[in-house]
Amino acid sequence: MLFGGGKDKQFFALLNEAAQTISETAKVFDAMVQNLERSGEYAEKLYKLEKQGDRITHDVILLLNKLFITPLEREDILELAMQLDGVVDGIEAAAARLHLYKVKGSNHVLREFASVINQQAAELGTAMQRLAAKQLQPMRENTVRINELENQGDKILRDALEKLFEHETNPIQIIKLKEIYETLEEVTDRAEDVADVLESVIMKHS
Amino acid sequence: MLFGGGKDKQFFALLNEAAQTISETAKVFDAMVQNLERSGEYAEKLYKLEKQGDRITHDVILLLNKLFITPLEREDILELAMQLDGVVDGIEAAAARLHLYKVKGSNHVLREFASVINQQAAELGTAMQRLAAKQLQPMRENTVRINELENQGDKILRDALEKLFEHETNPIQIIKLKEIYETLEEVTDRAEDVADVLESVIMKHS
Amino acid sequence: MLFGGGKDKQFFALLNEAAQTISETAKVFDAMVQNLERSGEYAEKLYKLEKQGDRITHDVILLLNKLFITPLEREDILELAMQLDGVVDGIEAAAARLHLYKVKGSNHVLREFASVINQQAAELGTAMQRLAAKQLQPMRENTVRINELENQGDKILRDALEKLFEHETNPIQIIKLKEIYETLEEVTDRAEDVADVLESVIMKHS
Repeated sequence: MLFGGGKDKQFFALLNEAAQTISETAKVFDAMVQNLERSGEYAEKLYKLEKQGDRITHDVILLLNKLFITPLEREDILELAMQLDGVVDGIEAAAARLHLYKVKGSNHVLREFASVINQQAAELGTAMQRLAAKQLQPMRENTVRINELENQGDKILRDALEKLFEHETNPIQIIKLKEIYETLEEVTDRAEDVADVLESVIMKHS
Repeated sequence: MLFGGGKDKQFFALLNEAAQTISETAKVFDAMVQNLERSGEYAEKLYKLEKQGDRITHDVILLLNKLFITPLEREDILELAMQLDGVVDGIEAAAARLHLYKVKGSNHVLREFASVINQQAAELGTAMQRLAAKQLQPMRENTVRINELENQGDKILRDALEKLFEHETNPIQIIKLKEIYETLEEVTDRAEDVADVLESVIMKHS
Repeated sequence: MLFGGGKDKQFFALLNEAAQTISETAKVFDAMVQNLERSGEYAEKLYKLEKQGDRITHDVILLLNKLFITPLEREDILELAMQLDGVVDGIEAAAARLHLYKVKGSNHVLREFASVINQQAAELGTAMQRLAAKQLQPMRENTVRINELENQGDKILRDALEKLFEHETNPIQIIKLKEIYETLEEVTDRAEDVADVLESVIMKHS
């Protein structure tokens, strides 16, 4: 069952919307980590984006229910929708902790994570456009890059933890920051999970 | 391959047994958090229920091996059995920490989680009965409710963490309670994972 | 589609290579925990093994892309390759923390985990040889044993956490060791995930 016509557009429109939600979420998060004194305001925006992400996933499921023929395998569409939503969920969870834990001041680790996540968001956006345009092979560029960025995320985490344990003497501060850094590293893992689904879609249709 | 007859009953009987094990586990956990001074006794009961859950999952696998035709897709039955078992595992893991870490005294966060998990257990119970009775569409009521309860679990966790970092000054106490609260929130996520499998079963047979 | 001939050997060769990488990784980790004062040196070796694991997974994906007919279902081969790689990733992550966090001195918990993981690695090695030799039923011995070892890992973790909270008064030390112990317990879970895939392969071909 290879790409059909007509109603397929609805699926790709929803997946694109999901990618755009990630992109917006990543941008708001980037602004947040540069303005931590206003974290409450940003946390609220991100909460709304998270609900928007849930709604898109729900719409994908409704559409899967309605249509007998789908442009990709049902499991792949559902998996893509859920993993894309997972990226938004992870960013929102980290942002909520930043706010709840009252983390303040400048923090270059958060900025580095925000940058990596924004770059992954851009790659996911392009990948979803290519998927809709049935340009499967070019999507590999995006999946390769997403994986490289995930490696960067892992390195940021390791360096951050090393420095945190070296310089921070307040255990409560360590608990807070460690959780937030780990949550952000998991966001980059989830972007890689999307890339893995895309790899498998490319594989099935090549 | 839509619901057949005869031997199918064995699968549904096992899935029902799994749901009943969750229900019993959730009740024992509820009693535990109201009697933390006797946590050892409850932890032991929960350990036995956890082994019972493992045995049911194992029986499902044996039955899948024996039968050529199954009432649902094999992957869905296996996934259901494993995710149901995951709920029991999570409750038992949280309870074991409560005991090992010697958490004592009254704790309303634990009670709130116990209540949400008990409600999810009731929904899972009804859903499994409906599945056995081939009443697929009504199962949606249960899956919707399970998802709402998962949202409640997330809110309980966030409020609890905020208050914990605000009021608790002993970092070791924070480490202990944070882990237990997070484990309980994951239990509500696992119930949602069961609901997701049920959604996909409804989808495939509608 | 049951085991074909010829090109199949390439798949099994790669899966065997993955199992051997686990075995080597587990051995280096065992040496590391007995010589923590030289942790940097071992962490570097493990980092290289982790990259080797990634390369093998990548080769499996390339081969899946090239071949139309595969000896097992594509999803199962991919799942096996990814879960085997996950075992290596987990050991390397724990080892990196040991080094980054400057954990020193003798630690019998680490040695117990290293022993369990080495035993699981040996079982995975035998299982992969049996898979290549199409001796599916005998693989059950390995999966049963891997599951028993996972139970041991869980018990080691619980005992270790109980003692850690009883005897360690420095919260920062608790944070470090707790994370490392939990990561090692997850390694034993991942070995169990491989065993689960093998169980499902046995099931499909029996």
